[in-house]
Amino acid sequence: MRVLIYGAGQLARMMALSAVPMGIEVQAVDVGSETVVDPISKLPAGMSLSQAIEEADVLSVEFEHVPEHLLEQAHVSGKLKPGIEAILTGADRVREKRLLERLGIANCAHRIVTDVEQLEEAVAALGERLILKASRDGYDGYGQWRLAQAADLAGLKTALAELDLNKVPLVVEQMADFSRELSLVGVRDAKGRCQFYPLAENLHYQGQLHVSLAPAPGITEALTTQAQQAFTALATELDYVGVLAVEFFQVDDRLLVNEIAPRVHNSGHWSMQGADTSQFENHIRAICGLPLGCTAALRPSAMINIIGCKEFSQQLLSIPECHLHWYGKSVRKKRKMGHINVSAESYAALGARLEKLSGYLPMEHFPKLVAEAQRLQSL
Amino acid sequence: MRVLIYGAGQLARMMALSAVPMGIEVQAVDVGSETVVDPISKLPAGMSLSQAIEEADVLSVEFEHVPEHLLEQAHVSGKLKPGIEAILTGADRVREKRLLERLGIANCAHRIVTDVEQLEEAVAALGERLILKASRDGYDGYGQWRLAQAADLAGLKTALAELDLNKVPLVVEQMADFSRELSLVGVRDAKGRCQFYPLAENLHYQGQLHVSLAPAPGITEALTTQAQQAFTALATELDYVGVLAVEFFQVDDRLLVNEIAPRVHNSGHWSMQGADTSQFENHIRAICGLPLGCTAALRPSAMINIIGCKEFSQQLLSIPECHLHWYGKSVRKKRKMGHINVSAESYAALGARLEKLSGYLPMEHFPKLVAEAQRLQSL
Repeated sequence: MRVLIYGAGQLARMMALSAVPMGIEVQAVDVGSETVVDPISKLPAGMSLSQAIEEADVLSVEFEHVPEHLLEQAHVSGKLKPGIEAILTGADRVREKRLLERLGIANCAHRIVTDVEQLEEAVAALGERLILKASRDGYDGYGQWRLAQAADLAGLKTALAELDLNKVPLVVEQMADFSRELSLVGVRDAKGRCQFYPLAENLHYQGQLHVSLAPAPGITEALTTQAQQAFTALATELDYVGVLAVEFFQVDDRLLVNEIAPRVHNSGHWSMQGADTSQFENHIRAICGLPLGCTAALRPSAMINIIGCKEFSQQLLSIPECHLHWYGKSVRKKRKMGHINVSAESYAALGARLEKLSGYLPMEHFPKLVAEAQRLQSL
Repeated sequence: MRVLIYGAGQLARMMALSAVPMGIEVQAVDVGSETVVDPISKLPAGMSLSQAIEEADVLSVEFEHVPEHLLEQAHVSGKLKPGIEAILTGADRVREKRLLERLGIANCAHRIVTDVEQLEEAVAALGERLILKASRDGYDGYGQWRLAQAADLAGLKTALAELDLNKVPLVVEQMADFSRELSLVGVRDAKGRCQFYPLAENLHYQGQLHVSLAPAPGITEALTTQAQQAFTALATELDYVGVLAVEFFQVDDRLLVNEIAPRVHNSGHWSMQGADTSQFENHIRAICGLPLGCTAALRPSAMINIIGCKEFSQQLLSIPECHLHWYGKSVRKKRKMGHINVSAESYAALGARLEKLSGYLPMEHFPKLVAEAQRLQSL
């Protein structure tokens, strides 16, 4: 079997690495140059995009921001999984909000704003603590603005004045007073069967995910049920096939959907060591029509992103059950260079390992690590 | 870092798949054509062998039968791990026997025979139930003969008459009355630290490994100690770096070394799902000077070789904790095409899963599976 992934970054690479043992060949499309490459070596595959589409059994994506003309071309082949609607929904916060509303899934109170003059009404309805997100191309904290108090509104309007809000509307959300961020990564097969990884707890810094912990501590059955019901409603409505991630804010004992990602997700990378079948293998299994693999956590695991740096001691591999996943990219500020997975038999033991890990890493690039190591040891 | 592996088969491929996440690039040498290839795609790497040796940080092997002129060239580069003596010892049963004798490691009573006329003396000393093995190129049951009774000696001498026993002597062994075959896969780093996977039990059929089970059931501490002591003595003497496999016959509560393999080993493939760090990752870690990973078994696991067939139901992946490892080769009689790893929380549960697995496979190619499934359920 042959799979073609749109996007040739680390997610395509990790999907390819998990597909090879199943005898499935993965090629990737560099969506900028529209060339077909090997997602591991990044070498040209020696074929045109249309030839690659023709020869592939399944097409999929590693990210939702695929240019629309490429998505359309993939869609008309009849081989795209998940489908174009799911991908477009993940790429557009307005579509996403409308879907959540239609399905009655709890999310943050919000307004869609197509003109800066509508901001006053939004403040009146939602209060003065707001987060404004561009409907499209909002990725890792880009294209977002915050309002902390009504007095700053005039300045914000000036900052937004140059944007064409009719073309790219803003989703203006009430800043949720949440206790933590959680995500549910799950997988749905073509027959509609869903399997779920446990909820992960996600620690962000300056708009980027830094640490995921799975299973998230202190999860009640009620929280899991809410999350799985939201996932199932979304995946069913979208007739989804593959791995889907749903991000939540936890407010008391309620979950509000923050956003959905129609693909394998950074907060599921722990599954490469922490579960029997990783999210990458399960995405490939699902889109290729193979039975899904087990998603239960084998033991508590943490995923630590390596962001914007490449200098650290390889001796970190001396920590038991510690694995490096390097993406082979050149270093750039705020760029995800790789991640580290650490597992242990208990949260306390995991915390101790993370504390040890912090000794091998430049702490200025890992602002969430030490506090998380200490928190886990005190659980 | 860059690693060059001699041999471009499944072992090089699985080493490469485990090296990529650590940011280590693996290339392979097709030792027949002496070309350098990508061990995953098998595409030419676009460089000469001498250039690849020059650019590599470490050289290693996926099998011991590398032509000697290539081994010598690798050796003089100063980058070969494990060293040439270890590889030549694994490739030559006479060298191997001499090493075992020198170190006082228990093995089968034997004679080295360089002339068929010495066979009478061997029968007189060892008895009439013998196994004769060519010192070199004995691989997967080729180059082996058996004597069941003294009366057959004349016929055997005729069969051997055409061989040049001075060039390739025979190791003539007393057929051991063993209860089972076990193997110890371990890894030694450049500083001499060893870590061991648990002993695996191996089921052969017509000279080929069909099923490995790890940890082997019913292993006493005394057996583990014997195996680890033999491994450590061999690895220390050879100043070994990397994964080494030692195969044993169990006779009552004693272990006799059958043979050693200076490389990752088929009886260690279960570690891809059954241990935190697979033998492939640990070999790469060791030869690249990285800390070794954990070798403990997470849960009971079985490895089932797929030999000489490629037709089976992919629905076998519906069995929990069941993973396919396909090598991407064309089918040939007795050729190892791939393997299946199955894990479970107990031997009994593992046996039940193997029984289910047998329903998805053509049983004529899996002669050991059903009986093993039943045995595990009765443990």
